[in-house]
Amino acid sequence: MNSKTSATRRAFLAASAATAAHIWVPRPVKGYCVAEVLAPVKPMATGISKWDLDTPALCVDLDKLEQNIAKMQRSLAANKLGSRPHAKTHKCAAIAKLQMAAGALGICTAKLSEAEALAAEGLDRICMTTGNLSVSKIRRAMQLRKRTPQFIQAVDYEPNAHDMDAAAKEAGIVADVVIDMAVGTRSGIPPGDDAMALAKLVDRLPNLKLRGVLSYDGGAQHITGFAERKARALANIEGNVKTFEAMKRAGLNTEIFSGGGTGTYNIQHLVPGFTDVQVGSYLFMDMQYLAIGGADGNPVYSDFAPSLTVLATIVNHRFPGRLTTDAGAKAFTLNVPRPGVIGEPGMDYNPGSDEFGTITFKESRKTYKMGDRLEMIVPHCDPVVNLYDYVYGIRKDRVEAVWPITARGHSQ
Amino acid sequence: MNSKTSATRRAFLAASAATAAHIWVPRPVKGYCVAEVLAPVKPMATGISKWDLDTPALCVDLDKLEQNIAKMQRSLAANKLGSRPHAKTHKCAAIAKLQMAAGALGICTAKLSEAEALAAEGLDRICMTTGNLSVSKIRRAMQLRKRTPQFIQAVDYEPNAHDMDAAAKEAGIVADVVIDMAVGTRSGIPPGDDAMALAKLVDRLPNLKLRGVLSYDGGAQHITGFAERKARALANIEGNVKTFEAMKRAGLNTEIFSGGGTGTYNIQHLVPGFTDVQVGSYLFMDMQYLAIGGADGNPVYSDFAPSLTVLATIVNHRFPGRLTTDAGAKAFTLNVPRPGVIGEPGMDYNPGSDEFGTITFKESRKTYKMGDRLEMIVPHCDPVVNLYDYVYGIRKDRVEAVWPITARGHSQ
Repeated sequence: MNSKTSATRRAFLAASAATAAHIWVPRPVKGYCVAEVLAPVKPMATGISKWDLDTPALCVDLDKLEQNIAKMQRSLAANKLGSRPHAKTHKCAAIAKLQMAAGALGICTAKLSEAEALAAEGLDRICMTTGNLSVSKIRRAMQLRKRTPQFIQAVDYEPNAHDMDAAAKEAGIVADVVIDMAVGTRSGIPPGDDAMALAKLVDRLPNLKLRGVLSYDGGAQHITGFAERKARALANIEGNVKTFEAMKRAGLNTEIFSGGGTGTYNIQHLVPGFTDVQVGSYLFMDMQYLAIGGADGNPVYSDFAPSLTVLATIVNHRFPGRLTTDAGAKAFTLNVPRPGVIGEPGMDYNPGSDEFGTITFKESRKTYKMGDRLEMIVPHCDPVVNLYDYVYGIRKDRVEAVWPITARGHSQ
Repeated sequence: MNSKTSATRRAFLAASAATAAHIWVPRPVKGYCVAEVLAPVKPMATGISKWDLDTPALCVDLDKLEQNIAKMQRSLAANKLGSRPHAKTHKCAAIAKLQMAAGALGICTAKLSEAEALAAEGLDRICMTTGNLSVSKIRRAMQLRKRTPQFIQAVDYEPNAHDMDAAAKEAGIVADVVIDMAVGTRSGIPPGDDAMALAKLVDRLPNLKLRGVLSYDGGAQHITGFAERKARALANIEGNVKTFEAMKRAGLNTEIFSGGGTGTYNIQHLVPGFTDVQVGSYLFMDMQYLAIGGADGNPVYSDFAPSLTVLATIVNHRFPGRLTTDAGAKAFTLNVPRPGVIGEPGMDYNPGSDEFGTITFKESRKTYKMGDRLEMIVPHCDPVVNLYDYVYGIRKDRVEAVWPITARGHSQ
């Protein structure tokens, strides 16, 4: 990160606090855990201050979350694109339902176990964006398709298409399939002859129905600077567009051409034939996305508001210029940029220890003591959410909801 | 890491495979998930090959685990020390019970929610090694002490000692307390007058009973090179020893003087008055501990066998010198050194992407295809275990147990 970005980020962290309803850190705090918030005394759940939660606590600001969902839906619609939000970010059935209610075409999942968990909570339009590489998993996917008729499965490997056809037959269904076409070297079948041959195979197999293609460019999402991000995203997908158009000319079903994300949501409509964007992080934002820069030239990417935070408690104040908190790598991961302390732009938060965070600073806005709370913007939202069993939904600093992270740990 | 260590590590990874019963990677694999392994068909649970598990799968080799537990217990006993294994490493009631059965004095936990979860599974000798910083949490700790009479609570802050005394009175108990004395600046009360004053306060408060002190030197555990590690560990704890001896002379109860870990288990007996060691990682080992070097001068620390691995599936083989797997940061964390591929010392495993791992190599022992499995030693055991809901217990490459990670995510 260059120094201009770094300075702007500090300004952002300072402003976040200035505009917040409270930067108040109460003493003594209650420290209620999930069980206490949920359990018998019902009124507690809706009334208590977020500052009274046990920590580390994963919190989402509901006003910001709702604004982010509405803004994304509106922006994509204005560009004649649909949204197919990627649930790998939140893994949370309650949030997926908010996205569906706002008009999403469906949700995506990265892994089969994620799809199964969300389907069990009533999500019925799920697209699994990677292939399954074992016979048992392919069978499970086809059983899921049987229970959830709008389930769509990606495939990027010919032997798996054959296995899927057999499993679909066994399940007594004709399964919806999209071709996962590679952008780069990570996953997916390369565009061109290989992808075309696979699409034709899927089209031909009696128990599979071709629905279109996926082209997710993970590498483009975090390119710093809008102009460069746009140029790279459009260049990277050129080969895929050619293959997509060839499929169309060959009379194959191309009703879905899906990919992109929060970093390219305002670029994807420039891709010919593109139908919908797999946005994820826009819900929450994080220190990584804040740093990529916006289309308006601002080095802080501010299209969406950072809604996801972790509250921590100070457990050591004894050394000048130094604080220890109860939130380390098990609360924040080791992603960079590091957690951003809201209201304290001069603080550097190092979550490198498993159980403890270490904050160093030359100046602070207030004097902190053991037991005080601090609130941090998370480094990278997806893997941080994956550490927690629950997220607290907060409105005007009060707890309004406690949502299970439905597919937490479902990395299979 | 210097090049000698790196070369020795490569040799270790190569040898791990040579001595393993199988480096066999079957095709096609079954890919059974936890639900399939546990569910109706009971014989499946004990019979299936680890290579047939759905991936990413967290596995512990039971022969190695048992050997590690026995060796640690034997080594500490030979030095007239007890073991009080730290459950922050495994968070697993089943493994804690193995440690207790082998003769541990009790277990430690880093957080209260961890202690509550393990106590609910029948662990009754728990020492919580950090203080609680909210009134609600202090009350919960005293309620836990009421249900679990051998629970011991650390304290490092005078106001909390008063709160704990009040909560103990409210619960109708006299609570067992140890003083968490700092080594370094992270947590705990500094040795000297401060610690002495707190010990006297605890001794004086009517509803608390002083049991002794903790002195955990987290920083010393991973110092590379045995001689330097030993020198630093002994120097760092000198002030604590003086305070401990002054407490003894003052007639305070000093029956517990506990700390240390896997990196200093064979050093702690040189600390006067030390009673027991809070060993954790020795169970599993990891790439971090392998790199610290042993007392025998070997740059690979081989006192304990790496028992904890993650199995992954190859999801892209299309590019020479490159493989993609289904195990990224959500399966491995971002700790370094990176995962070590067993049997393939020339492979560099980068788990930097959330959902995918990327392996690069110039040479490999075999040719891999999509659907094949690889097995990796984990970078750092504690936070990797914390990603999974279950660990598979493996003996001679067959599944023998499926253990819930009881306190997974309990970072509060």
